[in-house]
Amino acid sequence: MMTNDFKALAGLINNRLSQMSYGNQPIELYEPIRYIMSLGGKRLRPLLVLMSYQLFKDNPEEVLDQALAVEVFHNFTLMHDDIMDDAPLRRGQQTVHEKWNSNTAILSGDVMLVKAYDLLMDSPGNLKDIIRAFNACAAGVCEGQQFDMNFEHLPQVTEADYLNMIRLKTAVLLGFSLELGAMLAGAKPSESKALYDFGVDVGIGFQLKDDLLDVYGDQKKFGKQVGGDILSNKKTFLLLKALELANPTQLQVLSHWLSQTSFDANQKVKEVTAIYDQIGIKELTLAKMNEYFAKGFERLGAIDAAPERKEVLRTFTQYLIDREK
Amino acid sequence: MMTNDFKALAGLINNRLSQMSYGNQPIELYEPIRYIMSLGGKRLRPLLVLMSYQLFKDNPEEVLDQALAVEVFHNFTLMHDDIMDDAPLRRGQQTVHEKWNSNTAILSGDVMLVKAYDLLMDSPGNLKDIIRAFNACAAGVCEGQQFDMNFEHLPQVTEADYLNMIRLKTAVLLGFSLELGAMLAGAKPSESKALYDFGVDVGIGFQLKDDLLDVYGDQKKFGKQVGGDILSNKKTFLLLKALELANPTQLQVLSHWLSQTSFDANQKVKEVTAIYDQIGIKELTLAKMNEYFAKGFERLGAIDAAPERKEVLRTFTQYLIDREK
Repeated sequence: MMTNDFKALAGLINNRLSQMSYGNQPIELYEPIRYIMSLGGKRLRPLLVLMSYQLFKDNPEEVLDQALAVEVFHNFTLMHDDIMDDAPLRRGQQTVHEKWNSNTAILSGDVMLVKAYDLLMDSPGNLKDIIRAFNACAAGVCEGQQFDMNFEHLPQVTEADYLNMIRLKTAVLLGFSLELGAMLAGAKPSESKALYDFGVDVGIGFQLKDDLLDVYGDQKKFGKQVGGDILSNKKTFLLLKALELANPTQLQVLSHWLSQTSFDANQKVKEVTAIYDQIGIKELTLAKMNEYFAKGFERLGAIDAAPERKEVLRTFTQYLIDREK
Repeated sequence: MMTNDFKALAGLINNRLSQMSYGNQPIELYEPIRYIMSLGGKRLRPLLVLMSYQLFKDNPEEVLDQALAVEVFHNFTLMHDDIMDDAPLRRGQQTVHEKWNSNTAILSGDVMLVKAYDLLMDSPGNLKDIIRAFNACAAGVCEGQQFDMNFEHLPQVTEADYLNMIRLKTAVLLGFSLELGAMLAGAKPSESKALYDFGVDVGIGFQLKDDLLDVYGDQKKFGKQVGGDILSNKKTFLLLKALELANPTQLQVLSHWLSQTSFDANQKVKEVTAIYDQIGIKELTLAKMNEYFAKGFERLGAIDAAPERKEVLRTFTQYLIDREK
């Protein structure tokens, strides 16, 4: 089959996921894997694998294991990141290290990384190239997480540093998902590379959009507390640009709010947002975001695949861009 | 070259290790890798890869990266295990999570696992078979660590459970090292499998020997405090067999010492050892250990390789068996 229907592809993925066996004994090692994989999510990355594959080949059912490899890897990073970030919740449920303990989350995560490799083993195409690309992506994601943790303790982070961090932490895995789909379909290296670049560009755009929605999102649609990043002094693109462009008076207000340990939450969000508005941070972020989306779509346009097939990926990406949470 | 000289092989390994680059930025991610890899150790596992390779082929220089993959993987497990075991020291130096912090040890360890895979990429031989065997080994090692942690909280552990745990936690990686060397040399699957089994058998024997030396080792040669396992109530083969075979009076003495939280260390070691002596635990453990060594050597004998080449591996294994620390 070949399908333009996202829901049909998601159905294939979720069906295979529900049949997955990660291992049995000791149960303490494997139960947390089943747990985190069952928490849901949009399954965005395996969807991208299948859509990229379908640019060149039919029968996405042939590469479901490889698509799941990316989802298992993604959830491995979530399991370990949640320990490092001391996060209590993941998709509204207890994180693994909270439900069990940190040791369990470390070790189950380790096995998940091994299982991700194992799911790639029967890949059609050049296995060595595929694993090498996966290795580069996996190391990059770890580098991004380390940069992100470093940034918390740095007084100053440049725009370039920030863009590099989100590229590594979130965008390269989207890029790899698309690259993998192309490699599995036997596409030319130049096409696989172009799809990788497309994924990285729109991935950076998505993260900028997330940063933006945290401040300017519609509370009802966003699903999280608007202003959460402001309250936690998170070094987002918005804050970094504001610190870079603020005049002395604006800088004083920002610094005041960044240094307060006790404050009225609504007031902090309101006053920091007011500074953002004065500087025009929303427009600056939108411009940067759209720059990345445009660059991404340009790359997609140049890819040597049937236009109607590329249209599926374009439509899906636009749908992701337009979502408000 | 082909060499029977262990020191020459170790020299090749250490030379390549000293030239290894794991990555640069962020330094917080890569410095701990350089640190743990520099702490030394016998480099036993990469030595086994090269020796197994030399059963079938000359020029071990050709597979140094693959030999190092096993050493990097081993050190990844040490870095994560040390977090889980809350160990302050590794080879007499601060552990990574003590010198930096747990988050650093988690994330640097994750990258090490990826680097281990990366070092296998240029393997001669069938890459898919090699990675599959490595995946099975890696998952097994994690399972062994989880069983070991579980055992701490179990009232009763059987001999079979214990042997299975040490097989997974320590022996399968020795088995895989030997299997890998054979696969890299293009040996027949039956020979690779026989070498794996040889490694697993002698690996179990080595762990039983470690358990034994902890109680019956020569303090001067052993290098660790004799009786450390007794003091920490560690569920070793010796303790499990003693609990299994003790008469009611002996069981009472053992249970007494297992339940004491405050005690004279020398007295505890002396009295528990006295019970072991009464039951004949030393002889029982020696018999079990020698059973595994004998089984291992029998497998080695049956391998289809030049006798003088097998002699190298036999001599080295005997040297490891005879060491007293």
